[in-house]
Amino acid sequence: MPTIPFLPYSILVGNLSILCLGLTVYWSQHWLGGFAWDGSRKMFNWHPVLMVTGMVILYGIAALVYRLPFSQMGSLLSRKVLHATLTLIAFISAILGLEVVFNFHNVQKIPNMYSLHSWLGLTAVLLFSCQWLMGFASFLLPWTPIWFLVLYRPVHLFFGSVILGLSTASCISGINEKLFMRLTNSTTPYSQLPAEAWFANILGMLILWFGMLVLLGLAIPGWKHSDNLGSRSPM
Amino acid sequence: MPTIPFLPYSILVGNLSILCLGLTVYWSQHWLGGFAWDGSRKMFNWHPVLMVTGMVILYGIAALVYRLPFSQMGSLLSRKVLHATLTLIAFISAILGLEVVFNFHNVQKIPNMYSLHSWLGLTAVLLFSCQWLMGFASFLLPWTPIWFLVLYRPVHLFFGSVILGLSTASCISGINEKLFMRLTNSTTPYSQLPAEAWFANILGMLILWFGMLVLLGLAIPGWKHSDNLGSRSPM
Repeated sequence: MPTIPFLPYSILVGNLSILCLGLTVYWSQHWLGGFAWDGSRKMFNWHPVLMVTGMVILYGIAALVYRLPFSQMGSLLSRKVLHATLTLIAFISAILGLEVVFNFHNVQKIPNMYSLHSWLGLTAVLLFSCQWLMGFASFLLPWTPIWFLVLYRPVHLFFGSVILGLSTASCISGINEKLFMRLTNSTTPYSQLPAEAWFANILGMLILWFGMLVLLGLAIPGWKHSDNLGSRSPM
Repeated sequence: MPTIPFLPYSILVGNLSILCLGLTVYWSQHWLGGFAWDGSRKMFNWHPVLMVTGMVILYGIAALVYRLPFSQMGSLLSRKVLHATLTLIAFISAILGLEVVFNFHNVQKIPNMYSLHSWLGLTAVLLFSCQWLMGFASFLLPWTPIWFLVLYRPVHLFFGSVILGLSTASCISGINEKLFMRLTNSTTPYSQLPAEAWFANILGMLILWFGMLVLLGLAIPGWKHSDNLGSRSPM
């Protein structure tokens, strides 16, 4: 794999994450009608913000913690605690992101979990919950036997990338679905690409590029510090 | 990574590929109205069949050619030719899959390339075209210098998995989009989960599991035969 300097890569990932989050907030605020916590449509508008923040951005940054050069980070334990904390905040965001949509549906008498987007998204969150619990038990609790870590570590790495892929795909199918819902009977339908459609399509592509960039960062062999299983590291 | 026996894995992948293809054909035939090549809605119905066949199933099986046990396959050259042939058929399917939807849109005066699904899908096909040409030039033509192979091989592997992820996500967003289009003003809307919605949602989840299973097969270290770059192998 060609070597890429880590600093410009992390600046790019950082700026892209701010851009994705900013555009998601702007879409929810400007086009979808703003925020509330009352079971109305405005409560739903937290859903894209919480999901993009938790399942994509925080999750992606948490995965890259193990790619930071050693000199810029403290001990392995501090790195593990940072990874666990960021993914825990990401998971709480995802649970809140589910809560707002279930609450909105229940108040508005809209059935839950009917679209393929919702099936995909719930699959991602369920896998993420297993991943977090298994990761915590294996890499932070001291009594997990080494033979189990040897088996589980590559599984954790594999599902780490898979869950990010599922989250990114969920965001894209969710944006696509929302645009069809909002613009099908609109005076300027989705097929005429009104300003909101351009905006949200570009947002979807930026989320895709963020996800692909994180997966690239995880795949570069030169950025992996060690395969030392005895250290209980999930790198 | 825990060791999985290759034979039951490949039987599972084979059966899942037949199931995905069969259900896609059945959806197009039974619910979408069957097939034609005349610019009508029936021409569009080739789109899901060609895309699932090419970008997911043939592509996935082609990727797994390099995971077959050596004793079950001939020389490295025959393996490379099989991989190139399967991916070429997959690519032709994808081009035909684009042709039917562009032709249908043009005849019906529907704009092309407006939805996020179409942006995602075209990204997958464009990346796939670069991947095929670069793979062919690097691993089948004899004059590519070894230093370039050393650089390019991991890039080919990385994008191989990424393109499969993009294709799977495109299929899921496409099924989701089609169900919203068809069922929004229907007597039994998508939110009431009529039989077609159950059927196509399950199809989407099976395509997802197929994609994840292939990525798992590519990730199992014990199934990778060699890192010998001098052999010009893209394993």
